[in-house]
Amino acid sequence: MKSKEKPLILVTNDDGITAPGVRALVQMMNEIGEVYVVAPDSPQSGMGHAITINSTLFCEKIKIDEGPQSDREWACSGTPVDCVKLAITRILPRRPDLCVSGINHGSNSSINVIYSGTMSAAVEAGIEGIPAIGFSLCDFSYSADFFAAEDYIKKIVKESIDKEMPKGMVLNVNIPKLSKDKLKGTKVCRQAKAVWVEDYDERKDPRGRTYYWLTGKFENRDKGEDTDERALEDGFISVVPIQYDMTAHHFIAEMSHWDL
Amino acid sequence: MKSKEKPLILVTNDDGITAPGVRALVQMMNEIGEVYVVAPDSPQSGMGHAITINSTLFCEKIKIDEGPQSDREWACSGTPVDCVKLAITRILPRRPDLCVSGINHGSNSSINVIYSGTMSAAVEAGIEGIPAIGFSLCDFSYSADFFAAEDYIKKIVKESIDKEMPKGMVLNVNIPKLSKDKLKGTKVCRQAKAVWVEDYDERKDPRGRTYYWLTGKFENRDKGEDTDERALEDGFISVVPIQYDMTAHHFIAEMSHWDL
Repeated sequence: MKSKEKPLILVTNDDGITAPGVRALVQMMNEIGEVYVVAPDSPQSGMGHAITINSTLFCEKIKIDEGPQSDREWACSGTPVDCVKLAITRILPRRPDLCVSGINHGSNSSINVIYSGTMSAAVEAGIEGIPAIGFSLCDFSYSADFFAAEDYIKKIVKESIDKEMPKGMVLNVNIPKLSKDKLKGTKVCRQAKAVWVEDYDERKDPRGRTYYWLTGKFENRDKGEDTDERALEDGFISVVPIQYDMTAHHFIAEMSHWDL
Repeated sequence: MKSKEKPLILVTNDDGITAPGVRALVQMMNEIGEVYVVAPDSPQSGMGHAITINSTLFCEKIKIDEGPQSDREWACSGTPVDCVKLAITRILPRRPDLCVSGINHGSNSSINVIYSGTMSAAVEAGIEGIPAIGFSLCDFSYSADFFAAEDYIKKIVKESIDKEMPKGMVLNVNIPKLSKDKLKGTKVCRQAKAVWVEDYDERKDPRGRTYYWLTGKFENRDKGEDTDERALEDGFISVVPIQYDMTAHHFIAEMSHWDL
């Protein structure tokens, strides 16, 4: 990017365009670039990489709060991935220099990356060749302090612009629930091998039909010291570079012994 | 697995439990193991790794056709990933030995793996430590010939059981639209670097509001000879081993030069 141009930053999320987390991120990004917001009109948590193919999408201009971006915001009826596709194809005046997604209300560390609408939006930007970063705060509260990590968030964004991340690279940034003075810094790490051990709460509806609510317990089975879970436990902001080639390259040779 | 036990096979898909593709797969799997079907009650294409967290799930026993599995089928109101989670946690009598998903109506090769409900169901089984295979036929037609590749499908399933795939390994199998005598065999390959170049068809609803339909063109930008796209072009069934650690391991060292 030429140094004198202001970067065009696409902001999106999965908690919906009015969520405090994205409003905080918009405010921070206004200091760094020219912000456009295209985000879901309603909560889309857990939507993963879902796209809307069997129904229509609405996407309307909306004014939410005062700020340099206030006439550059759109609320979209689709998923976070829809927002990114539609923004790039139809809404933005040019390709964005960066896409930031979040700040998510709740962790997207380790295996959560795959279920997360926030991270899937960032990954979609990555697929489209746009550097992207997803931010999540490990605090579900509506009144969580999204500004405790403000300095780190801005530093990560600026570095990703200055260092020109390779195409297709995406950062998954998770912030522990700590006050500003307790945050220990950032750590670049790998995704921990953790899982959700599900349970389903089984109930009867008024007509006697069985229905289920998903519940579950997060279990980190990875004792590695270089994981995002470990960094968060230790009070660091975890930064995991991620990519979307899902090929298990090491297993291709192994399969030459298969009789297929 | 002990050789005398019949493997318990969980069958699911994303086109819905009555789709011809899954009915064909059920029929084939009945010859190999004890089949349980837990699949969406309606089409869920493009749902990626979405899960249902903000609403309830229904999952009811359903009898669709005659066969050994006919009293072991459930239709679920959720996404393909919900089906797998619910099957493992609540429906099946024990952990399945294998999960097969599909046969999808349409390709899930290259980047499609990330949008695909079919493949996300298989990946979810992988996350839960269950060997899993997703099958897709590159033919959207309702009357597509799902049996042309029957021998190959059964061979791949049997090999994956005999060779005991490592935990977390998932196969993405795509079948070209060819008659049985034209199929050239199988090829183990990597995911091609291909993308969808989107466009959105913009229209006005009767009230004058703008809405959009997703359209797009698939573009394979990867000239490699070891890709799934190349195998399919050449008349082979592509088999890509996939995994769900999205960490860009090679970039972690690179980031040590960043000022974070």
